[in-house]
Amino acid sequence: MSPRRVTLLSDFGTADGYAAAMAGVIAAAAPSAAIEHASHAIPPGDILSAALTLSRYAFLYPPGTVHLVVVDPGVGTERRAIAAAVDGRFFVAPDNGVLTRVLRQALDVVVIELDPRVIATDDSISTTFHGRDLFAPAAGRLARDEPLHTLGSEATDPVLLELPEPRRAAGGISGEVIQVDRYGNLITNIPLDPSPPAGSARPDRVDGLDVLVEGRSVGPIRRTYGQVESGALVAVVGSLGLLEVSVRDGSAADRLRAGRGTPVTVVGVSSRATPGPRD
Amino acid sequence: MSPRRVTLLSDFGTADGYAAAMAGVIAAAAPSAAIEHASHAIPPGDILSAALTLSRYAFLYPPGTVHLVVVDPGVGTERRAIAAAVDGRFFVAPDNGVLTRVLRQALDVVVIELDPRVIATDDSISTTFHGRDLFAPAAGRLARDEPLHTLGSEATDPVLLELPEPRRAAGGISGEVIQVDRYGNLITNIPLDPSPPAGSARPDRVDGLDVLVEGRSVGPIRRTYGQVESGALVAVVGSLGLLEVSVRDGSAADRLRAGRGTPVTVVGVSSRATPGPRD
Amino acid sequence: MSPRRVTLLSDFGTADGYAAAMAGVIAAAAPSAAIEHASHAIPPGDILSAALTLSRYAFLYPPGTVHLVVVDPGVGTERRAIAAAVDGRFFVAPDNGVLTRVLRQALDVVVIELDPRVIATDDSISTTFHGRDLFAPAAGRLARDEPLHTLGSEATDPVLLELPEPRRAAGGISGEVIQVDRYGNLITNIPLDPSPPAGSARPDRVDGLDVLVEGRSVGPIRRTYGQVESGALVAVVGSLGLLEVSVRDGSAADRLRAGRGTPVTVVGVSSRATPGPRD
Repeated sequence: MSPRRVTLLSDFGTADGYAAAMAGVIAAAAPSAAIEHASHAIPPGDILSAALTLSRYAFLYPPGTVHLVVVDPGVGTERRAIAAAVDGRFFVAPDNGVLTRVLRQALDVVVIELDPRVIATDDSISTTFHGRDLFAPAAGRLARDEPLHTLGSEATDPVLLELPEPRRAAGGISGEVIQVDRYGNLITNIPLDPSPPAGSARPDRVDGLDVLVEGRSVGPIRRTYGQVESGALVAVVGSLGLLEVSVRDGSAADRLRAGRGTPVTVVGVSSRATPGPRD
Repeated sequence: MSPRRVTLLSDFGTADGYAAAMAGVIAAAAPSAAIEHASHAIPPGDILSAALTLSRYAFLYPPGTVHLVVVDPGVGTERRAIAAAVDGRFFVAPDNGVLTRVLRQALDVVVIELDPRVIATDDSISTTFHGRDLFAPAAGRLARDEPLHTLGSEATDPVLLELPEPRRAAGGISGEVIQVDRYGNLITNIPLDPSPPAGSARPDRVDGLDVLVEGRSVGPIRRTYGQVESGALVAVVGSLGLLEVSVRDGSAADRLRAGRGTPVTVVGVSSRATPGPRD
Repeated sequence: MSPRRVTLLSDFGTADGYAAAMAGVIAAAAPSAAIEHASHAIPPGDILSAALTLSRYAFLYPPGTVHLVVVDPGVGTERRAIAAAVDGRFFVAPDNGVLTRVLRQALDVVVIELDPRVIATDDSISTTFHGRDLFAPAAGRLARDEPLHTLGSEATDPVLLELPEPRRAAGGISGEVIQVDRYGNLITNIPLDPSPPAGSARPDRVDGLDVLVEGRSVGPIRRTYGQVESGALVAVVGSLGLLEVSVRDGSAADRLRAGRGTPVTVVGVSSRATPGPRD
């Protein structure tokens, strides 16, 4: 049988050894586990970023994988700790909304409120580092095949983030940037179907649509970056199925001075009063 | 049997491939080893940071783990290379003090001076990259279960850093900041007992004590960040059992313009001439 | 049998979850694979950096290792995707030159053009993230022991970068900086034999040679950093067998305001009109 795989996601960075402390606890609890540091570079306390990042990989891993997620600005408050089985994968995290996207897109969900007394005597759990003292031990137990329900009692109301939702607007869809990735791509909350219309013979763009970032046209939705010149703005359907605005070989965030919350609109060309020069 | 686990800690970063070179050498020597990059983000040449980081995770890993530590500003000088068995874990490192904290807190220690001729013919060891040519091969041998004593001869005088020690001062304890972590928490060298006094019914703070950073009061020692407002300064006993000064949801290093070496004092309230407004 | 080892190299960073997405795809395809993140810190789109970094570790890993390399500024253009068996290791990458150094130094090379239709139906391959949809699935197949030739048809003309080559110049060798590493070391394209001349009794420097960075002497080629004072410039033969210029305990890139492309010359002392004071 293959070893149980455990991934770690946090905002700890690696330099201080906090991330390795969690890995060590898991290794001690489940010596044959395959431990993988997914990322510790989430901006400190940025629950929304972590939720998006987690949703990019969680279900690509095989069933049985344990995903540990510790972005926990509320450590030492009354926030709960949870573990969950979601479509065959396990998750351990603070109950602060970081699992929002994986819970929302799932068919089969069981959520448990972690009972700290199951993990350790109360005095051995620090008040500042639940990653090491509570979450990693819970992940370690799942990694050595202990059943989820032994970790606590069922919870039916996990915290879910109010993610900004796109709205139908006059002549189009109105949304916003929800993440800027390493390349400066603006990832929006506007879901789009990446497949070309039937019979369109793989057109290089979706005709009749225009994308506006804070009112400025960046042109139609293209199939791929390669359809514009190096340095040009381009709107594409990104790998999460969300509208993204990029600069080929550059940063759209820098070019447009845009970031999380910047409004993005998709409109029919006919609804724009003054079509941009690129159309 | 579970695979031998090997962790890597260095100041190499990852972009240049030096860290992966060490991992490759270990993988070739011990093909079934579970290799884990603990961190390569130690500030270049910062032996003290590496010593603190290592002490956060080394003994959380199970016995038999091999910890490779290469922060080696003295590569190409006469500094020795060492390997050690410390309370059941193995360590391979330059003999420059980077193991100070794990050696000081251990009960059972054997230190070996690595004999380069056991590892390789002299000409195959570069003068600039002992991580690849000397330390990783030694770690690889331990990872394939070769006994420690085959790597060289016993050494009784490993280099130990003179870590700054807290001092008893008039009415309190005088120490300093020894590390700033990713969150801007100021980690001091003042050890404190995190448990509440018996019979105190879990008080939310240690009464009668005040923490001063460079003479400025940051208030009493709290049990957890959650006991102050977001944005407020708070002193807590951190996860290493050391006094830490934080800003909830912010950076104490930025707020107080403090860093390594900044003086921190814990005093009885009665010994302060002018109590701060927060008490 | 030891698990198949897979390394990942990219310019993705880790914060966005793109790197973990590739790892998840490989884990699903080859559940027992040992997955290792070599680096995701290559500067965005910097194919030359990735080629150098890869060459630092690729052949240190044992035969059978699968090296996945995704630095792919041309995703969504007509650039090909390739897989290769090179001296016993496997490589999967865009055909953009990122394998130049491993292909050039190899004895035994087979290159395959990846056939996307073997990997997935065309519609399931996004136009923006071939790392997840094309390269990682190919690496996963190799990791579960599928033969290379099942992934496509042989290609004989992989793209090779025109790496800058050193030239013989009057009285010496003329080259340039090709990479600046994390320490600010200037790594040049000038290969040098690190071994001392026979009978030289390990001299501490190669006599009669002087290294010039943009015309400024940094002295002779030393055996190791330790032969100059802390803070001094020093030329050494680095761990790739290339001439490097460093500052001991400092950054040569900062000191000399040098970077990729800065000219470096090695001359016989006699050919210099005005010898520097340090000789």
